[in-house]
Amino acid sequence: MAYIAVLGHGVVGSGVLEVLMTHKGSIARRADVEIKVKHILDLREFPGLPYSHLFTKDFDVILNDPEVTVVVEVMGGLDPAFQYVKACLEHGKSVVTSNKELVAEKGAELLAIAKENNLNFLFEASVGGGVPIIRPISQCLAANEVGEIAGILNGTTNFILTKMIREHMSFADALQLAQQLGYAERDPSADVEGADACRKICILASLAYGTHVYPREVHTEGITKITLEDVAYAEAWGGVIKLIGQVKMLESGKIHIGVCPMFVSRDSQLAGVDDVFNGILVRGDATGDVVFYGKGAGKLPTASAVVADVIDCVKHFAKRKYLYWEDAKPDYVEPFDVMPTDVFVHIQGKNSDSAFDTAETLFPGAVRLIRKGEKEGEAGFVVSQISGRELGEKLPRLEAIGVKVLGSIRISDY
Amino acid sequence: MAYIAVLGHGVVGSGVLEVLMTHKGSIARRADVEIKVKHILDLREFPGLPYSHLFTKDFDVILNDPEVTVVVEVMGGLDPAFQYVKACLEHGKSVVTSNKELVAEKGAELLAIAKENNLNFLFEASVGGGVPIIRPISQCLAANEVGEIAGILNGTTNFILTKMIREHMSFADALQLAQQLGYAERDPSADVEGADACRKICILASLAYGTHVYPREVHTEGITKITLEDVAYAEAWGGVIKLIGQVKMLESGKIHIGVCPMFVSRDSQLAGVDDVFNGILVRGDATGDVVFYGKGAGKLPTASAVVADVIDCVKHFAKRKYLYWEDAKPDYVEPFDVMPTDVFVHIQGKNSDSAFDTAETLFPGAVRLIRKGEKEGEAGFVVSQISGRELGEKLPRLEAIGVKVLGSIRISDY
Repeated sequence: MAYIAVLGHGVVGSGVLEVLMTHKGSIARRADVEIKVKHILDLREFPGLPYSHLFTKDFDVILNDPEVTVVVEVMGGLDPAFQYVKACLEHGKSVVTSNKELVAEKGAELLAIAKENNLNFLFEASVGGGVPIIRPISQCLAANEVGEIAGILNGTTNFILTKMIREHMSFADALQLAQQLGYAERDPSADVEGADACRKICILASLAYGTHVYPREVHTEGITKITLEDVAYAEAWGGVIKLIGQVKMLESGKIHIGVCPMFVSRDSQLAGVDDVFNGILVRGDATGDVVFYGKGAGKLPTASAVVADVIDCVKHFAKRKYLYWEDAKPDYVEPFDVMPTDVFVHIQGKNSDSAFDTAETLFPGAVRLIRKGEKEGEAGFVVSQISGRELGEKLPRLEAIGVKVLGSIRISDY
Repeated sequence: MAYIAVLGHGVVGSGVLEVLMTHKGSIARRADVEIKVKHILDLREFPGLPYSHLFTKDFDVILNDPEVTVVVEVMGGLDPAFQYVKACLEHGKSVVTSNKELVAEKGAELLAIAKENNLNFLFEASVGGGVPIIRPISQCLAANEVGEIAGILNGTTNFILTKMIREHMSFADALQLAQQLGYAERDPSADVEGADACRKICILASLAYGTHVYPREVHTEGITKITLEDVAYAEAWGGVIKLIGQVKMLESGKIHIGVCPMFVSRDSQLAGVDDVFNGILVRGDATGDVVFYGKGAGKLPTASAVVADVIDCVKHFAKRKYLYWEDAKPDYVEPFDVMPTDVFVHIQGKNSDSAFDTAETLFPGAVRLIRKGEKEGEAGFVVSQISGRELGEKLPRLEAIGVKVLGSIRISDY
């Protein structure tokens, strides 16, 4: 018998209990031992559940119970999750978490404590929900150099963009629908401003390259400025707009990392990742492109990833510590605006042709796009291989000569 | 230092040496120990290689070397691979293989020997080449009931079908091109007749449901009868033709398993898996659909999967045995032609309309498809939810009343 405790009985926590109950037999077979939840920490009351007697409001009950060998942290947030997880690891308990904020902000520190105490700190569920990605990157792709990772890492924004693309809903309407369906929080800023995707690409970057990257170091743009006109230009170009988190190892040993909306070609495997799904592309030097695709969030997908980690902990309690990375180092993250990409630019002048002609004087070789329903005065074009820095210098000059810049969106090469 | 031996220096074997050399440092870091190849078994001579001195023609040199703890079998075929692998496991050596025939035919027996001797028998590379699938199914999805698995498991046939779909090449021309490019063997039958895909779905089924399924028990059709007319009808229906290996757990506790060409909807994540890529969809009760996509074959992708397994063996040599399934049991595989699916039927009569009208009397509710370039006398239609058995009874009756049946293709619901 292996005893575990669960910190937090929200959506994921109750899902963990559900998965453990409904798959009791098969889980015991796979773990070689029965897994029993002994304590559940939550400040709220949950009367009437078959396991109501397991609740406690006192974390010390868990910390000081020597029978509990694995603690599941599914509270979310940094405080008190960080203190609790740290204390568990220091008291000889392995920890499994789905908390991406915790891993993105405190991963290096917690992994070091886990290593020191010969324990596991596992977090498969923190990226991609039920889509296995942490373990494949760390194990299966061990014999590869990972050149880059690019992914649709946030289901909420992908749902909103899909509605904008397929049903021509405005951003505001699509967000409201996402909230009605429970895909977006009442305060949706962590999703739509890109912070959630940023945490996930930080975790993947830290794992793939062995050095912690903190969210504050990462250029992050959300999708709040994306318009239906942008969507139509993406279609005219031959693709769709997706919120992409990406990291790439440069020859200099630095990394290029960021989160921003991008045009993605219709031929890309990422283009077909719609609705609340996540898709993550890993480019290995030996394997080529490997794509992982599935439901990125939700109660049961996330809970099943947590339980898989628990099984792993229980099975290999004696020695396992396969996840590890070093703390951050200075000058490791290259400024995001140095890397050139193709970029779409959306402008407005007195009339479309003259606006484009003016733009062309600053961006020679620009390729014009004509969107469905283009309005008089509006124009869109693609500039090839320009850095954010250069673009940031030129766009104000374009405005200075009478052409209004409505926006610009990077174009991916995945 | 961990010493390994490699059986076979063909495409995959030489790739394993290459990956081990080019990623020496990162592999040592991940394995916690340096991995050194001590012997390479091959009957051929390979002078002039930096590791030419490692070759031996005598298997017993490897078997009797107590320093060798892990043996990599990349010879292919059953004889002598099976005898060698069995002997290694009986002599205390863990084994890593990319040999799908070996795993599909002898998996249960070898896993039992490995278990008995507390050793690893790992075969990530046997399915999906560099795409991680064995480990995700066995570990990450441990807390799921896997309802079904469906995949494009053979890169050669997928390349041929892609050429037929995109460039309207005939089957024969596309096969010839695949041979010229080295994607197909001179004798392509194992690929185009479906045997290769069959072995892979057997391995996945054995792994997912814990009971060995032998290739001889599995209904297997290849793509040799697929015509450009079929491709055009698939397009008219809204999809593409793919060679699909599938397995599904039924409520009866039996499995539905088979390999056959199918219409796949353009909206399916499998529809976009083109060229030599593989894509595998795993439908879990908690995770929903998870799709794994990447290069299914090739020297380096396969070699990198082999080396990842070697790292795992070396790292967990003392105790690991996470893969296991029981030997086959009687009446476990449901006859393939019992399960109803939608089916496309292609017919020929005196004229198209009358041929379809005649067919409709036998298949009430049939939905007609009109393909681009349809010829006089030809017709195509979809029958919903009909078993292979019923179809097999009705098609001869259709011929008896004067309508020639040119072919029929199942329609998938993935």
